[in-house]
Amino acid sequence: MDKTHDPALTSWVASANDPATDFPIQNLPYGRFRLQGDGAWRVGVAIGDQVLDLSAARFDALGGQPCASMESLMAATPAQRRALRAELSEALRDGSKRAGELRGALHAQAAVELGLPCRIGDYTDFYTGIHHATTVGKLFRPDNPLLPNYKWVPIGYHGRVSSIGISGQQFHRPRGQLKAPDQETPSLQPSKRLDYELELGIFVCASNALGEPVAMEQAEDHIFGLTLLNDWSARDVQAWEYQPLGPFLSKSFATTLSPWVVTLDALAPYRKPFRRPEGDPQPLPYLDSPFNRECGAIDMVLEVWLQTPAMRQAGQGPQKLMSSNFTDAYWTVAQLVAHHTVNGCNLQPGDLLGSGTISGPQAGQGGSLLELSSGGKTPLVLANGERRTFLEDGDTVSLRAYCQGEGLRRIGLGECVGTVLPART
Amino acid sequence: MDKTHDPALTSWVASANDPATDFPIQNLPYGRFRLQGDGAWRVGVAIGDQVLDLSAARFDALGGQPCASMESLMAATPAQRRALRAELSEALRDGSKRAGELRGALHAQAAVELGLPCRIGDYTDFYTGIHHATTVGKLFRPDNPLLPNYKWVPIGYHGRVSSIGISGQQFHRPRGQLKAPDQETPSLQPSKRLDYELELGIFVCASNALGEPVAMEQAEDHIFGLTLLNDWSARDVQAWEYQPLGPFLSKSFATTLSPWVVTLDALAPYRKPFRRPEGDPQPLPYLDSPFNRECGAIDMVLEVWLQTPAMRQAGQGPQKLMSSNFTDAYWTVAQLVAHHTVNGCNLQPGDLLGSGTISGPQAGQGGSLLELSSGGKTPLVLANGERRTFLEDGDTVSLRAYCQGEGLRRIGLGECVGTVLPART
Repeated sequence: MDKTHDPALTSWVASANDPATDFPIQNLPYGRFRLQGDGAWRVGVAIGDQVLDLSAARFDALGGQPCASMESLMAATPAQRRALRAELSEALRDGSKRAGELRGALHAQAAVELGLPCRIGDYTDFYTGIHHATTVGKLFRPDNPLLPNYKWVPIGYHGRVSSIGISGQQFHRPRGQLKAPDQETPSLQPSKRLDYELELGIFVCASNALGEPVAMEQAEDHIFGLTLLNDWSARDVQAWEYQPLGPFLSKSFATTLSPWVVTLDALAPYRKPFRRPEGDPQPLPYLDSPFNRECGAIDMVLEVWLQTPAMRQAGQGPQKLMSSNFTDAYWTVAQLVAHHTVNGCNLQPGDLLGSGTISGPQAGQGGSLLELSSGGKTPLVLANGERRTFLEDGDTVSLRAYCQGEGLRRIGLGECVGTVLPART
Repeated sequence: MDKTHDPALTSWVASANDPATDFPIQNLPYGRFRLQGDGAWRVGVAIGDQVLDLSAARFDALGGQPCASMESLMAATPAQRRALRAELSEALRDGSKRAGELRGALHAQAAVELGLPCRIGDYTDFYTGIHHATTVGKLFRPDNPLLPNYKWVPIGYHGRVSSIGISGQQFHRPRGQLKAPDQETPSLQPSKRLDYELELGIFVCASNALGEPVAMEQAEDHIFGLTLLNDWSARDVQAWEYQPLGPFLSKSFATTLSPWVVTLDALAPYRKPFRRPEGDPQPLPYLDSPFNRECGAIDMVLEVWLQTPAMRQAGQGPQKLMSSNFTDAYWTVAQLVAHHTVNGCNLQPGDLLGSGTISGPQAGQGGSLLELSSGGKTPLVLANGERRTFLEDGDTVSLRAYCQGEGLRRIGLGECVGTVLPART
């Protein structure tokens, strides 16, 4: 733990000292924003409820130049990014000599437009939530919920980039081919089983050449940081389309990200040992390293919140539906990078990996409505008496995530919000 | 059929009049190239064994300006592109007044570097080859080869963009987790069942807004043209990894495209009625249109050629392994666009769709070695006595495709060549 993690540090940006903020001076996540009437995306750092414009402030770690793009930040070495983090921490700290100068480079987050962190190249969605895989598997195969490959292979598949949007995304309920088991033929209809999935997004910052795998020891150097990711899913479309090549239109209508990329450096105090449960196979050598065993996992609370139109009309805020922890994942972020590249596949800066739905081990900890409603059979009863098996029009889903611990400052990922609009007619 | 298809047309570019060329004046496909020592990609038109540099020649259909990028050409309307085709046809025709001027904008294809036609956004691979799906399905499910959704849903899945390369691509045999049925646990090994897949690539040129499906009637306006696509596949990696979310590392190590995009306008004389076999379900209304029934299919011969290291050493050219026809596909290109967007997914200029492996109905017409060797059980015996179940190191696979017909000029897609290098140690 270096000085940037010291929980006693406070900032001259007052809102960063609010114990409830996701963005204290110990966090310093990166994102892109633009000012009203200004078309160009700028790179910024979230601090409290403000964003520091890195195109308007100069730091030695960036050669004393304005930060031109997220791509240039991603192209920096891990040591350069760590140096920038140290400089930002000093500059935003209480008593910093740069406070006066940097105040002019601050904007209220509420006053700017937040965008996707970068141009996303390829997007791969993994399936590391073993409790999710088990619960969903049980719905299809009660006797054999986990397939034989699950504990050996970090299961993943390619996802759709073009429909990835930023927090605040609104999308029309998708239509697709639906075929109920008792129907002879499918028909085109709006999805009746629309769902969310609670995931983390992992941004890649360094490339490997085609044909050259990334070893576990270098894997985290290829990771820029984490966001929240809502992998919206049309379960009925998925059930009919997914054999034999996997999910397609059941996912590609929308995917929502939170705007701030929280670096692995910020999360360093929350790293935890990665251990396989008793009796489970150990990872193959190419998915194993001493560092990964020692601190491959990340202790981060994940939550889903729902606000229905009735709640909104009654002036009620969203209701928390569940919480889980990223330590519930069966594979670490380093393992995802090592596995993805073991066949020679080239990852590139700006690529996005999804963790898969992170559910907890207990009933009530499912990261999707499919799990919480037992496949639509047991409606979830909300505090206001409403029921949900799947999402209804007007529902707003918010994902949240934060690390907190004894003697440590809370590090949050911000919010990932999306709203379901009615199907187009 | 307009004047540009007239088989009697000849060009002042002599090689375009060779009956064997893929690129007569009736074709006029687009691609990107660069000159030695010049880093910038230029847009060109293939004519015989030459390429006409569109950044060095001016056409009214492009506003009298040099063509700045493939993206700008894709952004043109279908009418503008048709006008450009007419102008190119006139300008390259025997007796054209522009011959002298345009001669300076010609380069020998052999002397330039050909690149990917554009920056590819998303890549979706479909599975329209019903004979392929049936043969492969039989290997896994002898009694029930085709899954119940096949004749209703154009099955597709997202593919990997970063590892797509251009004809001439060489790649190392991928490593991955392999588990033979008689083994207790998997291990990391070079693939032993490396294969090719004979596909067409379909480039998208027009975008639809997120949430707004493309109707069948407009679908072909969203298609720029066709290339060849080799969907290299590691069958043993695929068998172990693909449940439940589909192929991943078994495909993402390499995909090879041919450099020239042949437009649907060039293929107009080869359109054929699209008919479902007797007894098969008719497409749902969103996948149907009068135009599609009348001429949705494309009569195009597809071939796979193999050259082994022994052939190369003996000075022997490649051997043709099989041929099929794009009319063997179960879905048309318009249906792929309409299906892909029916859930609101936004296609964007530069997106790539793969047709899926196009095999013919007969034994010996399989578009992959998996089919030709009955899952590796019956080796293919080559003319020189060599045998192949799957690809060996040093093997070079060439895909070819062309349209030809009575009283019509042959329209070819060029070559899509790739070579397997040994696995890295």
